Amino acid sequence: MALHIVLVEPEIPANTGNISRTCAATGVHLHLVRPLGFRTDDASLKRAGLDYWHAVNLEYHDSFDEVLEKYKDGRFFYATTKAEKRYCDFNYQDGDFFVFGKETKGLSEDILEAGKETRIRMPMSDAVRSLNLSNSAAIIVYEALRQLDFPELV
Amino acid sequence: MALHIVLVEPEIPANTGNISRTCAATGVHLHLVRPLGFRTDDASLKRAGLDYWHAVNLEYHDSFDEVLEKYKDGRFFYATTKAEKRYCDFNYQDGDFFVFGKETKGLSEDILEAGKETRIRMPMSDAVRSLNLSNSAAIIVYEALRQLDFPELV
Repeated sequence: MALHIVLVEPEIPANTGNISRTCAATGVHLHLVRPLGFRTDDASLKRAGLDYWHAVNLEYHDSFDEVLEKYKDGRFFYATTKAEKRYCDFNYQDGDFFVFGKETKGLSEDILEAGKETRIRMPMSDAVRSLNLSNSAAIIVYEALRQLDFPELV
Repeated sequence: MALHIVLVEPEIPANTGNISRTCAATGVHLHLVRPLGFRTDDASLKRAGLDYWHAVNLEYHDSFDEVLEKYKDGRFFYATTKAEKRYCDFNYQDGDFFVFGKETKGLSEDILEAGKETRIRMPMSDAVRSLNLSNSAAIIVYEALRQLDFPELV
């Protein structure tokens, strides 16, 4: 078992690279839903992910439905500014999935509508539209890990 | 009052840009200790910080001692892999400072020795050396904000 990050159609290689580094650091599994805005041998991704890409438990999917189908028993949480509940308002469990949309547009209306009970947001001022994607993922995953008392980490 | 992030001699503009975005999103004050590894009109920094640089409460300092001198009453926490306590083992207060070293080397021995009682680390596996700097800053600041129930944020 493990926690999971799902990036739906990420656009910016440095963000996916940084998230892969967080995943390598924590044992969180990374799911990339195509189309991606970069090649995974892209130099920027390697640079951002440093030498950690090989250390990540990584899966590619052709659609988000494919993820839902494969992990029928998973609990999915959807990061979006259009959420009532805060990311720290849920009690997370081993095996939970955290889903993030593309940098420019976030998650699609379809995904958000289907996941409306488990949308989560980061409290923030109205000075910005959102946090950086890799920062949002890091904050949410570390909150879940904190709740679980950092399993297998030191 | 507010929380504070101090970046001592940051090297990579995209990291400082992302941290400035987090600061703009949260009202956290940002302190940059020179020398910086980039110009603050650097295109990469603007790109990473998007349009948020102007929304940050920002101070420049010529040394970390200057920060300590100016904020004598502040509580300073030092992010380092060389810490016994975890970042979530402290009860944070409004006005606290979180200090981060340069990407390649972290904080100097002098700073770490002086701050040994309040060093904080992120739990992680030994597969990576550290998290990305902007991710570490985001995780720690959001843990402090969470403890304080996200003052003035929605």
